[in-house]
Amino acid sequence: MKARFITLDGIDGAGKSTNLAVIKNWFEARRLPVLFTREPGGTPVGEALREILLNPATRAGLRTETLMMFAARCQHIEDVILPALQKGIHVVSDRFTDATFAYQGGGRGVPQADIETLENWVQGSLRPDLTILLDVPLEVSMSRLAETREKDRFEQEAADFFTRVRQSYLQRAAAAPHRYAVIDSNRARSEVQADIEATLAGHFS
Amino acid sequence: MKARFITLDGIDGAGKSTNLAVIKNWFEARRLPVLFTREPGGTPVGEALREILLNPATRAGLRTETLMMFAARCQHIEDVILPALQKGIHVVSDRFTDATFAYQGGGRGVPQADIETLENWVQGSLRPDLTILLDVPLEVSMSRLAETREKDRFEQEAADFFTRVRQSYLQRAAAAPHRYAVIDSNRARSEVQADIEATLAGHFS
Repeated sequence: MKARFITLDGIDGAGKSTNLAVIKNWFEARRLPVLFTREPGGTPVGEALREILLNPATRAGLRTETLMMFAARCQHIEDVILPALQKGIHVVSDRFTDATFAYQGGGRGVPQADIETLENWVQGSLRPDLTILLDVPLEVSMSRLAETREKDRFEQEAADFFTRVRQSYLQRAAAAPHRYAVIDSNRARSEVQADIEATLAGHFS
Repeated sequence: MKARFITLDGIDGAGKSTNLAVIKNWFEARRLPVLFTREPGGTPVGEALREILLNPATRAGLRTETLMMFAARCQHIEDVILPALQKGIHVVSDRFTDATFAYQGGGRGVPQADIETLENWVQGSLRPDLTILLDVPLEVSMSRLAETREKDRFEQEAADFFTRVRQSYLQRAAAAPHRYAVIDSNRARSEVQADIEATLAGHFS
């Protein structure tokens, strides 16, 4: 079986952490070789870039930030994702380029064509085989975030920002339905879990 | 007078520091408004990126490094270069995109077309009005470096690397002679100084 590249994405508070565990259990139960990773991928350079981006004192502009996101992604692909796929190990990444299209693009206004230019520069032909997009209404994501953790720089931004981000995710999914599974995450955990498991089963059948 | 964007470039050890002082004196003597800057431009994000790049422990790959160079340049342009030019202040930058074409491109193999893609992405239509390229034979640059300072990561690379870098600089200058002034820096200081002053006088006449 050709190794698959799967990404999990969605706005902050959409339930990624909870449902990553569901995906992990699914792979473990089938004893499929799989690597779980997340952007910026645990590479030294990626972590260093992430620190810069999360530190408001560095005041990275929007286009600079977008380049740095892709720099971290470049190293993540080279050091983590491609080596695993080449060994026949499936890869599940917590966030990937869809997040750049949604946050820096839809949310903050970098033109889609400019993001596509960097996507091609960094990724070549690499695209996820499957993207599981967890979708929740804005009110749900905001209240989940308020409960669970400190707000970082991105999470402090306004509600209309997250509305644009969510719309970007949904538009990208609508434009390439063969690649995306949009899962309504505003339901009982068991229902969301059943949908994720069915999606994975369908993809690997 | 429209503000000019001037860059000073050349391989390590070509005499940039010495000749920057010549350029400074020339502008001061004429009381022309000018800003001297250098990559990565003294922006907080640029300095943070530079630290990552100079630290061998972060092991940035070549393409990641190239993206980071352009991220720093993006902020440098936005925060330093463009605001000055828009106020009618001339800008002299110690190194600019020619260095990426020479070091990451000619020296280490990133295709020229890939660098041009990022150049357009980051700079739009901004290009230097004049690039003063200091040129010395490899033996001269190597012996100057050995005398004057610690070798950093880039300077430790091999002599054939610097040969390729120098050739890249010269090829770029030959392809756009209206923009470049190639100055033989392997001569007495007074002769180099006279050439630089004549170049500036010609450019501003």
